Amino acid sequence: MNTLQDARALDAQDPLRSLRDLFSLPEGLIYLDGNSLGPLPRATSARVQQAVQSEWGQDLIQSWNKAGWFAAPQRVGDLIAPLIGARSGEVVATDSTSINLFKVLHASILIAKTQANTAASGQKASKNIVLSERSNFPTDLYIAQALCAQHGLQLKLVSQGEIAGSLTPEVAVLMLTHVHYRSGHMHNMAALTQAAQAVGALTVWDLAHSAGAVPVDLHGANADFAVGCGYKYLNGGPGAPAFAWVHPRHVSAFEQPLSGWWGHAAPFAFTPGYTAASGIARYLCGTQPILSMTALECGLQVFEAAQALGGMAALRHKSLALTDAFMQLVQTQCAGFGLHSVTPAAQARRGSQVSLVCSAAPAANQPGPAHAYAMVQALIARGVVGDYRAGDASAPAAEDRLHIMRFGFTPLYTRFEDVWQAVQHLRAVLANQEYLKPEFNQQHAVT
Amino acid sequence: MNTLQDARALDAQDPLRSLRDLFSLPEGLIYLDGNSLGPLPRATSARVQQAVQSEWGQDLIQSWNKAGWFAAPQRVGDLIAPLIGARSGEVVATDSTSINLFKVLHASILIAKTQANTAASGQKASKNIVLSERSNFPTDLYIAQALCAQHGLQLKLVSQGEIAGSLTPEVAVLMLTHVHYRSGHMHNMAALTQAAQAVGALTVWDLAHSAGAVPVDLHGANADFAVGCGYKYLNGGPGAPAFAWVHPRHVSAFEQPLSGWWGHAAPFAFTPGYTAASGIARYLCGTQPILSMTALECGLQVFEAAQALGGMAALRHKSLALTDAFMQLVQTQCAGFGLHSVTPAAQARRGSQVSLVCSAAPAANQPGPAHAYAMVQALIARGVVGDYRAGDASAPAAEDRLHIMRFGFTPLYTRFEDVWQAVQHLRAVLANQEYLKPEFNQQHAVT
Repeated sequence: MNTLQDARALDAQDPLRSLRDLFSLPEGLIYLDGNSLGPLPRATSARVQQAVQSEWGQDLIQSWNKAGWFAAPQRVGDLIAPLIGARSGEVVATDSTSINLFKVLHASILIAKTQANTAASGQKASKNIVLSERSNFPTDLYIAQALCAQHGLQLKLVSQGEIAGSLTPEVAVLMLTHVHYRSGHMHNMAALTQAAQAVGALTVWDLAHSAGAVPVDLHGANADFAVGCGYKYLNGGPGAPAFAWVHPRHVSAFEQPLSGWWGHAAPFAFTPGYTAASGIARYLCGTQPILSMTALECGLQVFEAAQALGGMAALRHKSLALTDAFMQLVQTQCAGFGLHSVTPAAQARRGSQVSLVCSAAPAANQPGPAHAYAMVQALIARGVVGDYRAGDASAPAAEDRLHIMRFGFTPLYTRFEDVWQAVQHLRAVLANQEYLKPEFNQQHAVT
Repeated sequence: MNTLQDARALDAQDPLRSLRDLFSLPEGLIYLDGNSLGPLPRATSARVQQAVQSEWGQDLIQSWNKAGWFAAPQRVGDLIAPLIGARSGEVVATDSTSINLFKVLHASILIAKTQANTAASGQKASKNIVLSERSNFPTDLYIAQALCAQHGLQLKLVSQGEIAGSLTPEVAVLMLTHVHYRSGHMHNMAALTQAAQAVGALTVWDLAHSAGAVPVDLHGANADFAVGCGYKYLNGGPGAPAFAWVHPRHVSAFEQPLSGWWGHAAPFAFTPGYTAASGIARYLCGTQPILSMTALECGLQVFEAAQALGGMAALRHKSLALTDAFMQLVQTQCAGFGLHSVTPAAQARRGSQVSLVCSAAPAANQPGPAHAYAMVQALIARGVVGDYRAGDASAPAAEDRLHIMRFGFTPLYTRFEDVWQAVQHLRAVLANQEYLKPEFNQQHAVT
C-alpha cells in the first residue's frame, strides 16, 4: 500500500467493508481510539430509546422478566463467549473490569492456597506470589495490591521479558493483560498459561484490549480466569458493563466475596442466608445498569453480523493488514522524523493498535519524547483521533518510561484509506512542526 | 377522605401536584411500585438520547471531560446529598447498593477494630459482632455474611424489637435498612445511632427505601456510613447506579478493598502503586455506566424542581397524607375482608409505603395468607400495580413469616384519587373473590 489509490483498492476489496455502515461515525473524523472507547453502533440509539420509553416507561417492573432485564448478564455474556473461546453459559456481563478482577483474583488466590495445602507434602510449595507486569494497566495492579495485602501474598511486578523466568513454584497466580494497553504487545496466552500451570500457578487474563480485537481462545489455552471491558472493542458505550469468565473446573469451587443477591442460588426467595448460584451466576452481585447493558448488547450484535463475514478470523486478518500498513507507511512517509513503533513487528505478538514514540535523541527537525502529547493533540485538531499515554518516569524498564502515541485500528469500521490519510496528517504535523504550537502543549486530564 | 370528591379536592389543593407532569406515566395505570422501580421522568428520554447520539456518538472520548462523564459520580452525588442530610462533596453515585455496602461495611469493621485496639485497656471490649435485622433486605445480609466470615466476626440477626436490647459492648457495627422493605417500618435513625455509639459501635444505614421518600438527616443523626439505591424513589431507571456516603470523620481513615483506578488520588498518572484519593472519591472503583448515570441525574433533577415547592418536608407531608388515606380507606371500604396493615400507624415510624396482609384465620369470604400473591396479581390485572413479598417460612419472628402485599405511595406523582381508586379496585378484588382465579395463582419470578 503505497498510494491513496492502493488504499482505496484495498477498501473496495475488503470483505468486511459493509460492517462500517453499522456504525454512526462523525463525518470526516478518522477515529483511531476504538481501543479506548468504541464508537456508536447505528442500532444502539433506537434500542436504548426503546428500553427507556417502552420497557421502563410503559412496562415498568414487568420488564425485569418480560424484557429480560434480570437475565441480561447471562444473555449478553453469551454474546461475548464466542469472541473469547468460551462456551455459552460461561460468561456474565456485569459490573466494572476492576470489580470483576477483584472477584476472579480473589477466587484464584483461594484456589491456589487450597491446592498448595492439599499437595503431597513433598511437593508443598509456599504459594505466596501474585505475578504480573509492572506496566500492566494500573487498576489491575491496584486491585491485586489490596488482595495481596489481605491474603498475605506478595505482588511481584516484572517487565515483560522477565515473566517466563519469574514463574517459580512460589507463584500462586499469574495475572496478565493479554494485549498491553501501552505497547499493543500481545502475550502468548497458551504458552504462558502452560508455563504457569507447570509450576502450579493459576492464570487470570484481562482481555480489555483483546475481546473483539483479536481471536481469543480461553479453552484452547486452558486458561483459568478472565475478565474484560465492554466499552472498548465491544462498542458497548461509555462505562458499559464489563465481563467475567471462569473455567468450569473452578467456577463453583469458591464463593467470591461480593456475595450480592444476583449471585444467589434463588435471588427471589429472599432467604437471609447466602447460597451461591452454581456456575458463573455466582460472579454476579447487585442489580445491573440496564440502559448501559442494553447498549452493550447492541455493540455485541455487530459481531453477530461480522460472524456471517468470517467472524474473528476475518477481523484479525484485516486488523493485521491495517496495522501492517500503518507501520509501513510511517516508515516510508514519515522517514527522517525519528518516529518508531514500539508495537511488535511480529504479527503473532501484536494486538490491534500501533504505538509510536518520538526519538529519544531528536535532531532539530524532529519531535522528542516531550512532544508526544502535543503530536497527538495536533493530530486531533486535524481530525485524526488517537491518544497519548505518558511514561512512568520511575519505572526500571526503559520501555515503561516511554511516552506513547497510541493508534487503534478496529477492523469493524476502520478503512485502509483512513490509515493512508492518518499518515498524511502525521507527516504534515511533523513537517510543519505543529507539535510546537502552544495550544497543543496545555496538558489536562486525558482518558 | 371518604369520597372520590374528597380525593379530587385534595389533589386540587396539593401544592406538589405539578410534579406529576414531570413523569411519563402509562395512561390509566395506578402505579404503586415506585419503591421498587421509580417511573420514567419526562426529561430522561431526550437526555439519554443526547448522551448516546451527541456525547458518545459525536464527541466520543472527548466527553470524558467535555460532557463531565468522569466527574459524574461526584456531580450526581451532590444532587443526592441534600436529600439525605449530607453535604456537597460527601456522596458518590456509583456501582450497586450491594457493592457499596461491601465497601462501607468493610471500612466500618476496620475502624471498629482499630478503635477497640486503641481503647484504654480497662475499656477494651471484644468487638466481634455485626448486628442487623434478620429480615433486613437479604443482599445486605449476604454481603455482611461474607465480610464477617473474612474478618472473624459474628453476624447477629435479631428481630426489630430486639435491636436496642442487643446493643452490647461486643457490637462493632450496627447495620440497618432505615425503612424496612417489607413492612415499611422506619427506624429512629438518631436514637439507634446514639445507642450504638454509646456502646462504641459504628452505624451503617441502607437508605434504599428512604432516600427521596422520607427526610433523612445523616449529619443530624451523627451516622457513620450510608448507602442507597438509585432506581427506587430516586427514579434513576432500572439498575441505576447506587450511592455511598461516609461521615467526614471516617472517610479518609481507611482504604476500601475495591481499590480501582477511579478511587486513586491521580487516576490518570497511571502509576503502578495505589494511593487512595482523599475524601469520598476513594469509594469509587472502576469506570461507571454513563448512560445509566445520565438517567439517574435526570431522576434527581425532579427533586431540584420539588425543592422550589417545599422539598423533602413537603414531600413527606404529602406522603403521610397518602399513606394515612390508604390505611383509613382500607379499614372503611374493605371492612369485613380480614385485611390489615403491618405498616406502623405512627407516622414517625412509617416510610412511604403501606403493607397489607390477609387474615391468618380467614372466614369463607376472606382471602388467607396463601392468597396474597393472587390478590396482587388481580390488582395488577385491574391496572393497580403493587407487589408481593413472600414471608420467610423459617423465620422465628411471626412478622417475618407474613406474606406481604406492598403498596408504595410516592408523593412526587401519586394522587389522592389514585389512592381512592386503588382501594375501590381492592374492594372489588375482595368482593368478587378474584384472588381465586387460576390465572392469578401461577407464580413465577417476581422482583
